[in-house]
This record gives sequence, C-alpha cells and structure tokens, in this order.
Amino acid sequence: MVERIGEVVEKLKDLVGEDRVLTSMEERICYSYDATNQKFLPEAVVFPLSPQEISSILKLANEHKFPVVPRGAGSGFSGGSLPTKGGIVISLEKMNRIIEIDPENFTALVEPGVVNIDLQMAAGKYGLFFGPDPSSFRFCTIGGNIGECAGGPRAVKYGVTREHVLALEVVLPTGEIIHTGARPIKSVVGYDLTRLFVGSEGTLGIVTKALLRLLPLPEETQLLLAIFKKLYDAGKAVSSIMKGKILPSALEFMDIMSIRCVEESLNLGIPEEAEALLLIEIDGDKGSVERHVEEVKTICFQERALKVDVARDKREQKALWNIRRAISPALVRLKPYKINEDVAVPRSKIPEFIEGISEIGKKKNVIIANFGHAGDGNIHINVMVDNKDPDELKRGKEAIEEIFNLTLSLGGTLSGEHGIGIAKSAYIGMELEPSVIEIMKKIKDIFDPNNILNPGKVFG
Amino acid sequence: MVERIGEVVEKLKDLVGEDRVLTSMEERICYSYDATNQKFLPEAVVFPLSPQEISSILKLANEHKFPVVPRGAGSGFSGGSLPTKGGIVISLEKMNRIIEIDPENFTALVEPGVVNIDLQMAAGKYGLFFGPDPSSFRFCTIGGNIGECAGGPRAVKYGVTREHVLALEVVLPTGEIIHTGARPIKSVVGYDLTRLFVGSEGTLGIVTKALLRLLPLPEETQLLLAIFKKLYDAGKAVSSIMKGKILPSALEFMDIMSIRCVEESLNLGIPEEAEALLLIEIDGDKGSVERHVEEVKTICFQERALKVDVARDKREQKALWNIRRAISPALVRLKPYKINEDVAVPRSKIPEFIEGISEIGKKKNVIIANFGHAGDGNIHINVMVDNKDPDELKRGKEAIEEIFNLTLSLGGTLSGEHGIGIAKSAYIGMELEPSVIEIMKKIKDIFDPNNILNPGKVFG
Repeated sequence: MVERIGEVVEKLKDLVGEDRVLTSMEERICYSYDATNQKFLPEAVVFPLSPQEISSILKLANEHKFPVVPRGAGSGFSGGSLPTKGGIVISLEKMNRIIEIDPENFTALVEPGVVNIDLQMAAGKYGLFFGPDPSSFRFCTIGGNIGECAGGPRAVKYGVTREHVLALEVVLPTGEIIHTGARPIKSVVGYDLTRLFVGSEGTLGIVTKALLRLLPLPEETQLLLAIFKKLYDAGKAVSSIMKGKILPSALEFMDIMSIRCVEESLNLGIPEEAEALLLIEIDGDKGSVERHVEEVKTICFQERALKVDVARDKREQKALWNIRRAISPALVRLKPYKINEDVAVPRSKIPEFIEGISEIGKKKNVIIANFGHAGDGNIHINVMVDNKDPDELKRGKEAIEEIFNLTLSLGGTLSGEHGIGIAKSAYIGMELEPSVIEIMKKIKDIFDPNNILNPGKVFG
Repeated sequence: MVERIGEVVEKLKDLVGEDRVLTSMEERICYSYDATNQKFLPEAVVFPLSPQEISSILKLANEHKFPVVPRGAGSGFSGGSLPTKGGIVISLEKMNRIIEIDPENFTALVEPGVVNIDLQMAAGKYGLFFGPDPSSFRFCTIGGNIGECAGGPRAVKYGVTREHVLALEVVLPTGEIIHTGARPIKSVVGYDLTRLFVGSEGTLGIVTKALLRLLPLPEETQLLLAIFKKLYDAGKAVSSIMKGKILPSALEFMDIMSIRCVEESLNLGIPEEAEALLLIEIDGDKGSVERHVEEVKTICFQERALKVDVARDKREQKALWNIRRAISPALVRLKPYKINEDVAVPRSKIPEFIEGISEIGKKKNVIIANFGHAGDGNIHINVMVDNKDPDELKRGKEAIEEIFNLTLSLGGTLSGEHGIGIAKSAYIGMELEPSVIEIMKKIKDIFDPNNILNPGKVFG
C-alpha cells in the first residue's frame, strides 16, 4: 500500500508527465492480472520511456517506501507481475524499441518491452532468430522472458533465455543504473551478474536494455506428428529419439485429455484408442533433416506408434503448432479452474513420471491433463478442478503436492520456465536447502535494502 | 600467512590424515606456481577426498583466519590458484572421479579434479562430448574450467563453460555444503547461484561435484588451413564466414609472429609474404560439412587468401591442432617474457583491432604476437619483452594498457576466458562500473565473511 498516494501520484506525474501515469479504476484493473487468473489492484500504473525515468521512480519508492512491480505483457503463469502488496506497476510496454540488429556479430540490442515475435521478425530479415520461443511469443515481452528465464519448445536444442543474454542495462531498486556482461560471448570479468538478473523474476532490478545473442536460421524445418496408443510408449519414444543422438528443435508431448480440448480444430484422424501424441520438429541442413525425419519415424514405430505423419508444407506445420499452443487456454473446457504446474524431470524419467501422475490423479479423483516440452523433461501438468467445489479444490491441491514430491524424487525441479512468483513460493523449501534460500535473500538485500521492488515474490 | 602454522598443520593432519598434508619445501614449491610463471609458496598443501573434509578444513580456516586457495592443475593464466597471501592450498587432484555418464539425459556427474580430456574420453564412449575445450584440455581440470568459465576453440559454436553446467555441489567458505541448479536444462527456482559460481575464480566456494551437460558428437569434422598475405584480410574473412551464416566449430587466427615460433614443426609451405593464418573447423552431418567446407573456401579466396588447404585425414587434423596449441608455450623464443592477455572484441571488429594492436606495437617498439579464437572475437595477445630490460618491460606494460583501452573502445572485454585473478585485477575498474564492483564485493562478503577463500583475487 502506498501512503499518501495522492502526493505520490503528483510526484510521479512530475517525473514522467501526466499522460503516462494511470490512476482510474478501469485503467488499474487492466494491470491487475496475469495468466494465473488472480487479481491485485495497483494504486497507479506508470509508463516510463527511459532508465532515467525508472531510476527517479525507484528513488521515489525508496523515499516513500512503496512497492514497485515491473510488468511486461502480464502473460506470466506464476504471478511475477502482480502487485500483490499494492503499490505502483511500472509497465515497460512503451520501452519497445529494437535498437539494433547486428548481423555480423549475431546480436540484437533491445528494450524490455519488445514483444518476442517482433524480435523474431526483425532478426528473421537477416536470416537470424532469437532462441527462446515461449508459447506466448505473440505477446510476451523480452523483459518478461529475461525475468522468468523463459524457455519454450526450442529450448531442447537451443537452451533457455540465460544462454541468449550477453549484456544488460539494469536500473537497481535503489535507482542506480548499471551495466553487466559484455558484447563478446566470452567474458570473465568479475561475477556473472547478467545471469543473476536472468530468472530473478523482477526482484533484483528492472532491465532497460538487453544485448541478446541471435542464431542463424536453419535451412530447413520438418514437423512430425506421432500418435501412440499408450502414454508410456510416447514417453519411451522421447527417450529413444534423444538416445539416437538426434537433437530435435522441439519434442512436444500431449496427452489425450489435452488433445480432446482442441479436438474440433483438428482433422488428424486420431484413433479412438490413442492416449498420447508427440510433435517432433527437426531443423538443420536440408539433407540431414530428411535423414533425421526418417530415423525419428523408425524410432516412433519401434516404440509402437499407431501413426506418424509428416507435415507436408509450412501451412500444415503452422496448423499443428497452433493446435499445440491452443491447448493451454482450451483446458478450461474440462473444468473451470486449472492448477497449472510446470515441473521438469530428467527426460529419461518421463515414462515413469507420466505413470506416476496418472496414479496420483486416480487416487485423488481429479482430472489431470499433461502436455509440454518432453525433450527437455519440462511437462506442463494441469490439475483441473471446479473451484466452487471446496472438496475437489482441496484434492487438487493435494495432488499438486504429491506431484511435486514425485518430481523431486525423480531428480526434477519445481519450475522449468514459469518461475516461482507467488504461485510456488510456498513450495521452494521442498527443492532448495534453507542455507541456499538464506543466501538468495541476502543477495536480494544487497540489491534492494528497502525491499521495494516486487516484494513478496519468489521467497514469499 | 598462517599464525601458529605448526598447530594448524597438526589439526589438518587430524582432519584428513598425515599422508594427505604436504609441508616440505620441495613439495610446497610444486604447488607455488601456475601458467603465469609467478611463484607464491603455500604453507601447506592438503588433498581432501570429500566435501566433508573440505568443509572441516574451511571451518578450521575461519577459526584461525588463514587463507585457503583451491587448485586444480595449476594451468591458469591469471594467477587464480596462486597462494599470494600464503596459507593453505587445497589441491582437488585426488577428487577426480567421473561418477556417472548418463547417455539418456546427456549429462556427466564429476568431481572437480577430473581432467578435461578424461571426461571427453569417457563421454566419447557414448557418442557424447563436453563443450569446453581449453587448449590445456590434456591437463586442466573441470573444477578449474568452472572456476574460470573456460572457453576454448569450440566456444564459437558450443558456448563457454557456464552453458554446460547444470548443477553444483559446493562447499562454501564457511564450511557449509550446498547444492545449486537442477538436473533438467530448464529450472527457474530462485536466483541462478550455479552461474554465480561459474567464473567466480575460486572466491565464492569450492565445487565438489558438478553435473555437466554433454552434447552428441558430430558425425563429421573437417579442418581447413587458410593462408593470407594481409592480416587485415584474414580478419575480414572471419567476419565474412560468420556473415555467411556458417557456424564453424572453431575459427582460429594466428599471425606470422606466432607461426614462426612453431615453424620447424610445420611443413605447410607458407609463402614468405604471408602475414596470417586461419584454422577453420566445420562439424556436423556429412553432407552439410562438405558443402560448408566449399563455401568457406570460396569466402577465403574472395577475401584474398593465398592458399586454402583441407586436412586430408584425422592425422593431418591432429597435426594442425598440435601446431595451434604449441604456439603459446613456444612464444618465449621471441623474447624471454610474455605478457599474455586474452581480451575479446565483437568479431566484426577484428580487422580494426588487429591493425590497432600492430600500431601500438610499433609505437611502443615491442614485439606483439597474436593468435586465438577469432570466431568469438577472443584474441590472445602476447607482448614479448625481455624482463631483464626495465625499459622494454615498461614499454610492454604501457602497450598492454593501450590494448585494453582499444579493446574497450571497440565494445570488448578484458578477459575472454582466462579470468582476472591477480593478472588483471588492477584493470578491472576500466571495464566495470564502481557500483558493479561494489555489488560483487558485497556478494563475496555474503559467501565469505572472513575473507578466507582465495583472498585478494579478482578485486585486488
């Protein structure tokens, strides 16, 4: 909560101009939610245009001790951009310039509000692309990608956001503007503050410029759809493909629950008895892609696939990807409320993991729909409940806790790419040792002595 | 310096056993140097076998307030493993088990004393490899690679050590044993402590286990040697190859000074007028490698190469690599003392950078030999002087400072892969802002309140 909010709002208007401070209820509601479906009203929303403006806002926040919450597109799944303790939302929407694409050094210099797809388009003109491709790439911002260390389907081959950030300009919670990292890929000059900011969920500073690493676009991309009668076999196929030393650019898994929700947009001839689908993308040079497609087909049939189809053209590829990306929002057809988790396990454990989840679902009598990035072991688990039914909600939450235990027992992690935010802060002690959490809190203290930036996130 | 060293040695012997504590002058001398050619005697050398033993040594150090310096193979180029303030050296040599190679998840779990090449051999049996390949890979250890965020020729395609470490077991300077990271590639659970340890040059903790990411070995590898009359043209060829969207697995540059030092091992028919060589490795699938080799050849000739040869077989490839790796130690033939720097610049700046270095050499009247990883802009600059000639030594040091200025003016970084250690700690303020150094020192304080672990490194 902001004390003397009227005075603060006046000062904010002095700092950035009246037209870039929103205070009406209607406007504040627009900045009160994210993809978790929870709502927390900010007391004002500010749209800075420069690190200097952000710096002055943060200095004001330290003076008045009010919370500041940075926000990109509000597409996060863990509540990272929600003003849970009130205060001011800093929307980075208007800082959305692609400052430079450097085709000789394969880099892009961007502001945090650049939408992922806009960067992909700009880089594509030079035959380059940006690795991270979260399913929300049509609206999520690079600032958010950095904050959450976003992944996406391509991470199995190209890695997550931390591998694609070279240098940052950051406004610290104290208002100081600093620079980390270096233009070359190689640099060992002091501690790796760049990676410390990546995945820090907007708690250590506000990124105002990012130098990103780009990669050459592959010559050719093919997409396969493999249909399996047994969940377990689909899981085994994932493992066998990777064991075959083929590194697909995406290896996505969808169980039948997920598929049924987007069924009407399909015309894939999925047999009645099918339990799971794999979407397998292979990229690279023309010749090698064709060879790998054949190898993957063979492996899928060895693992008892019912059917394996190769998309015939770009249009068919796009249609398949649209189906995959439509799953998450469509799941509410099963039940009105979705408890969405994004655990990751070593990919060899996927068959065991999927079986375990199915057991938990039966035991707790809840519907669980699973899909996600099987190639890197990152499965999105959706426990579907009616949140107006307290007993079902309770059983759903118990199921989640059992799934977390199963995940960790298989050598996994509680969040692959969505982050902790508020959604999982109660559970981080299951994965991190108390002394590790203690160190992290001390690091937060260095950067943010008054705890004004995104307070209450990650560590609860 | 260790107060009451006799008492401390007795306690160390109690902790790890008499046979694993060395105190004789001869033995201590063996642990007093690294590749910088500087010597600092430790007061004792201890060989722990477990994190628990390291923990107990560090607790003793906190009690008695003596410095502890972790050491791998002592092959570092920045003094990271030198006991500059006396104290105890902890040699990780005996903690050299490859605990697990997991061919399904492409990971290796190793102790810090494992030698890089031993890991490569073990992974190779499963058709996998570990990305980082510093030129010292035949003797440097994984612990050292992590401490310095080692690179190597292959980093241009496969990245540096930070991209290949998934999880760590670390003994903190306080003696606490902690675990960071996760088995899956994707994990966003709290701040990225794993990457904070990578490149921290043994100042934040002692790594006792590392879970590393492995990659599938490429099907085919080809190696080209291109000879250029003009240094500048070789630099331009680097840029043109990358602009052609070919990502070589190595793109090494050697100037004629460097080549002349290893000349007798050569039979390459280098024309008298040649100023520079490029060694270009292309890996991947058979068909695509062959095509890329042809493309690279064409580009080199477009950039006025005098000659381009392709190694005919593995034996010829190995011979060329041996020549490249022989350069660094052979340079002392030019002058007895080598001021060895490892700056990196954006690769498009290499022609300009090389010309600038040549100017500085002329101006300061010193011999400068350059070679290194041109593909990622990481050039090893060697100012060769007679250290018994005070004037030449002075001019050499002035040249280095000018080279640092040039590097930074081109958007570069002071160390690509060797680290700061003691060699560059005086210069770190040229690259990092005061507030950034302040943050790093505060982070060091969190981990090591008594400043016992590798004191005086990085920040001077």
